[in-house]
Amino acid sequence: MIIVVKPGATKEQVREILDQLEQHGLTAHISEGAERTIIGVIGDKSRLSTDSLEVLPAVEKLVPIMESYKLASKAFRPEGMSFAIKDVTIGGRELTMMAGPCSVESEEQVETVAQAVRACGAKILRGGAYKPRTSPYAFQGLEREGLKILRRVADRNGLLVISEITSENDIAFASEYVDMIQIGARNAQNFRLLSAVGKSGIPVLLKRGIAETIDEWLGSAEYIMSEGNYKIALCERGIRTFETATRSTLDVSAVPVLKDKTHLPVIVDPSHAAGKARYVPSLSRAAIAAGADGLIIEVHPNPKCALSDAAQQLTPDDYKNLTNEIRAMSTILGRVYPE
Amino acid sequence: MIIVVKPGATKEQVREILDQLEQHGLTAHISEGAERTIIGVIGDKSRLSTDSLEVLPAVEKLVPIMESYKLASKAFRPEGMSFAIKDVTIGGRELTMMAGPCSVESEEQVETVAQAVRACGAKILRGGAYKPRTSPYAFQGLEREGLKILRRVADRNGLLVISEITSENDIAFASEYVDMIQIGARNAQNFRLLSAVGKSGIPVLLKRGIAETIDEWLGSAEYIMSEGNYKIALCERGIRTFETATRSTLDVSAVPVLKDKTHLPVIVDPSHAAGKARYVPSLSRAAIAAGADGLIIEVHPNPKCALSDAAQQLTPDDYKNLTNEIRAMSTILGRVYPE
Amino acid sequence: MIIVVKPGATKEQVREILDQLEQHGLTAHISEGAERTIIGVIGDKSRLSTDSLEVLPAVEKLVPIMESYKLASKAFRPEGMSFAIKDVTIGGRELTMMAGPCSVESEEQVETVAQAVRACGAKILRGGAYKPRTSPYAFQGLEREGLKILRRVADRNGLLVISEITSENDIAFASEYVDMIQIGARNAQNFRLLSAVGKSGIPVLLKRGIAETIDEWLGSAEYIMSEGNYKIALCERGIRTFETATRSTLDVSAVPVLKDKTHLPVIVDPSHAAGKARYVPSLSRAAIAAGADGLIIEVHPNPKCALSDAAQQLTPDDYKNLTNEIRAMSTILGRVYPE
Amino acid sequence: MIIVVKPGATKEQVREILDQLEQHGLTAHISEGAERTIIGVIGDKSRLSTDSLEVLPAVEKLVPIMESYKLASKAFRPEGMSFAIKDVTIGGRELTMMAGPCSVESEEQVETVAQAVRACGAKILRGGAYKPRTSPYAFQGLEREGLKILRRVADRNGLLVISEITSENDIAFASEYVDMIQIGARNAQNFRLLSAVGKSGIPVLLKRGIAETIDEWLGSAEYIMSEGNYKIALCERGIRTFETATRSTLDVSAVPVLKDKTHLPVIVDPSHAAGKARYVPSLSRAAIAAGADGLIIEVHPNPKCALSDAAQQLTPDDYKNLTNEIRAMSTILGRVYPE
Repeated sequence: MIIVVKPGATKEQVREILDQLEQHGLTAHISEGAERTIIGVIGDKSRLSTDSLEVLPAVEKLVPIMESYKLASKAFRPEGMSFAIKDVTIGGRELTMMAGPCSVESEEQVETVAQAVRACGAKILRGGAYKPRTSPYAFQGLEREGLKILRRVADRNGLLVISEITSENDIAFASEYVDMIQIGARNAQNFRLLSAVGKSGIPVLLKRGIAETIDEWLGSAEYIMSEGNYKIALCERGIRTFETATRSTLDVSAVPVLKDKTHLPVIVDPSHAAGKARYVPSLSRAAIAAGADGLIIEVHPNPKCALSDAAQQLTPDDYKNLTNEIRAMSTILGRVYPE
Repeated sequence: MIIVVKPGATKEQVREILDQLEQHGLTAHISEGAERTIIGVIGDKSRLSTDSLEVLPAVEKLVPIMESYKLASKAFRPEGMSFAIKDVTIGGRELTMMAGPCSVESEEQVETVAQAVRACGAKILRGGAYKPRTSPYAFQGLEREGLKILRRVADRNGLLVISEITSENDIAFASEYVDMIQIGARNAQNFRLLSAVGKSGIPVLLKRGIAETIDEWLGSAEYIMSEGNYKIALCERGIRTFETATRSTLDVSAVPVLKDKTHLPVIVDPSHAAGKARYVPSLSRAAIAAGADGLIIEVHPNPKCALSDAAQQLTPDDYKNLTNEIRAMSTILGRVYPE
Repeated sequence: MIIVVKPGATKEQVREILDQLEQHGLTAHISEGAERTIIGVIGDKSRLSTDSLEVLPAVEKLVPIMESYKLASKAFRPEGMSFAIKDVTIGGRELTMMAGPCSVESEEQVETVAQAVRACGAKILRGGAYKPRTSPYAFQGLEREGLKILRRVADRNGLLVISEITSENDIAFASEYVDMIQIGARNAQNFRLLSAVGKSGIPVLLKRGIAETIDEWLGSAEYIMSEGNYKIALCERGIRTFETATRSTLDVSAVPVLKDKTHLPVIVDPSHAAGKARYVPSLSRAAIAAGADGLIIEVHPNPKCALSDAAQQLTPDDYKNLTNEIRAMSTILGRVYPE
Repeated sequence: MIIVVKPGATKEQVREILDQLEQHGLTAHISEGAERTIIGVIGDKSRLSTDSLEVLPAVEKLVPIMESYKLASKAFRPEGMSFAIKDVTIGGRELTMMAGPCSVESEEQVETVAQAVRACGAKILRGGAYKPRTSPYAFQGLEREGLKILRRVADRNGLLVISEITSENDIAFASEYVDMIQIGARNAQNFRLLSAVGKSGIPVLLKRGIAETIDEWLGSAEYIMSEGNYKIALCERGIRTFETATRSTLDVSAVPVLKDKTHLPVIVDPSHAAGKARYVPSLSRAAIAAGADGLIIEVHPNPKCALSDAAQQLTPDDYKNLTNEIRAMSTILGRVYPE
């Protein structure tokens, strides 16, 4: 951390800063410029309350040098970190395709989608059982029954299951039925839930909050990792901006930025970012071209009858076309498309 | 709801829309313009899945006419809705002042602040016991012990207690110690928590999510109200924008907009919006001038030793000066400042 | 400026940084911490290309310490800087009220408004003659004829004139008719126009760009000041965010932030921020309470017949009510309301 | 346009709306629902001031149905619109590669880059002669001399020239030296400049404003087209969001959205979006995969000595690697990479 001293600060005021540092066992390194004095702070900053310095009258601003996350940082595992769930590896050369309906509506619906996406390389079946909806009057999901349907269908089709959990109280039950828990955008900074999935040890797909910076997102991952659970993939799903042509703005730059800052695998969700099925193929190609390790895509046997997010779900045929494009691109990008 | 039909849509495609409406018991009202055909939809839209129409090929766009919230809308209680907690009324002519430290650190610290803010008109003591922090390594609060300290200090000083709860599992315990539960910005769309405080019936201060639209915010309030709990005050605390001079951007326009759209009282939190103590007085005055029903302000006996958010906490003296200004403004604005 | 060195940088790579600094006559001040090495840079950075250091392999990041503006900074005139246009002082204890129609439509229209707003303390008549409109098919203003109308009406009513100019080619003509030129949000970083009004010496109301940071805004002011023209007032008019309940989000925090960073007077435009007349009184009070030096408000004799921005213009009666509130607040805030 | 009537509006108030429409020769189509009355407006809305209806007491809101642009809309040329500059076609199957230094610094510098990028398929040489810089003290470009250098180098290497113009007064001079004028993000809504390049007839690369919606951007294109100049390519270069890991957030979704809404070709500028050279290859691949018609990329012979934007410029070797990837991807995407 660096402290920029206000121009015109008195010696006593600067002394006050140095005293505060000393009391917390930190070393100050003073550098006097023509227009500003700078104090470099050396030592274990965790001993110091985050910003108690900022209120001292001589402090113009504090400049953090280190990130607040450690386990999630690239430096922790510079070689990258893939992990396996049963026979599926996330974060390796092979792309990971997750697909399925927005909401689980019936066993027939899920079965139809599961067969279609499995035939196109998907290894993980997605489907919402607990649906966080903006209105309390909207369809809230089949809950426990939904998880059971996903499990049965997945088992019949040789797939793994991922589903969103919205309460720490559902983790134990869900862990019996799903292979990976999704933390949704609205719970991206629900730290109690993050700690709880951390303790459970179950693999996690951690979506980015709707207005979460990449640094905050890695802070959320750190909550899970600091409980000993390192099986985390990050999921970019669009951020909130002023643009309304798409539901969210897919931050495709987050892919190379994350590859630079963290060892965690990166999955992209083009369906929620776009909010419209017709933009999903374009965003899917862009995500893979940018270097994403996989995609999670919404597919519905008959989108116009879907109970939620109808507009953004692909038909099985659309999905097939999309995956054909992704398969063709994989080789050129040095990736392997799953069979 | 209005359906805008794509130019060039065939009769069969329009028929498909009308069939879909009819199947859900809805009436269509067709209006043909020179360039576009519009279909007005009349009836109970809750029978229709929210956007299953959007995937039909002839649909250009859907335009919602009604808000998705009902109980939270102005129309439900056009006269406004104040509510009492013991002898304190929120949402009446009298302004509601809530104040206290960011985090509960010790009984002495809270006592000092409580005496100071009570002397300046505060009726509700705030203090964080469960602290949602971006980093898992930052101070997380005294938790249950913190709530007990707040209760004891408040009782000695004739104050009510408000504190943030971050898990549905803490509501029962917290309800024994606090008079009002705060739902923080990070949990603004944690719908499980919202439903749980709704069921508990305890008064709620519902903060706006960091990137939540006003309509979504009222949707969050609706989650609580739909469980029968109408004792809700909304708390504007700044939204995330590109500007970094302040921690968040206080959306002061939200005050008149909310007064237009809802009957719920509106409290403003200038401390978290600004992130810097020196901007808090200016924002506090602006909030009250805009028509807010009260303020929630962070005060610490010695901000430079605070364990969290030091930079944004006022000293008791600063708080006194600020409240003197607010008191003077109250009469002119037709409000009563509490004694 | 501070250079944060990448962990693991070699001695040669650090040498490369030091060489680059030395070549530009800058002094390096090295500080080695446990986890990072920091280099403080001392001397005249204008000799160095802004970010040529950032490409060196050993550079993790650069941290600017000084702002890029000088004349606009508080340090240049710590006591604040008011300026006079004829008998009107902007930035003193007396508030500055500017009012008038969005667009000049006819001499009668402007006359009616001018009389009404003059009677309520306005000293400067606003009115759009050159209208930047999002669509080329919308009303573009009366241009030169509009400026002449404004001048004649203002002279009859003892008012000054402010109007927006959108091209450097119009400055000479406009300067004969107006007392102050407004630079609009869309031209906030039209540096050619800024330099030209700087050279002209005419007083300027510089609106904030729709997504301009406060630092960039002061950079825009610096463009004008660096040409020798110091008669600038800044105008906050709302920034673009995700919220759509108002046209823009009034950044009321910008008022205290600017008072902290610059000596330039601050005017607030609640009409364009709100986009709806019914929110204008609330935002006007908030702006003055926050410490603004004045307001610029749109008033139309008959808003429903206005040729532009009808929704946000007040009637003369609305304006009278609003100014009565502002007048009452002025004394409490230590300001003088103009008669 | 649709008018939503306020609940509880009186017959007289609704009458007032209908009168207003009638006076402007518009037809009203009334549709009464259980909770709201809706009025569809039919006829030529250009006769009506855009929002004079919004101030009527019975109007809850207005819902536009049609876009405000016509010539730029897909409906105007559903088959898409490519155009030729000399022997280069923009918007056809062949990708358009534009490359060159951020700023023209010397003939040698430009020559080195020109040879390198020409060898890798670039057909258009870019280089800044008039540089809009946030600070008036930063390098402002070589201006006229810069354009001359670009022309000479381009002619020697069989390239076309594109360069940014920031004032209508420079168009005539520039047109003698460049083949395409770039309108930068800061001038994206400088309507005087847009009209002037429209009148000039010279091909235009129209960058998106930093916070411009896609609809506003097409409104800017309409300004140029309404003067008879249809040779426009749109350039997505990142939008301003809360995320600071990249200079701007590349809105890759804008590519499919534009392909849906307009016939104009779409170019992507990954250099300005990223602000860091190491993210440029990833974003370039994403842009082409999303369906962009070309790229404009900054290349400098020795980025660390660049006079502007050093951090985001590629070396010629980096550029070669990047274009090899793009070439390989082209075939799969049904595009042709230029030789």
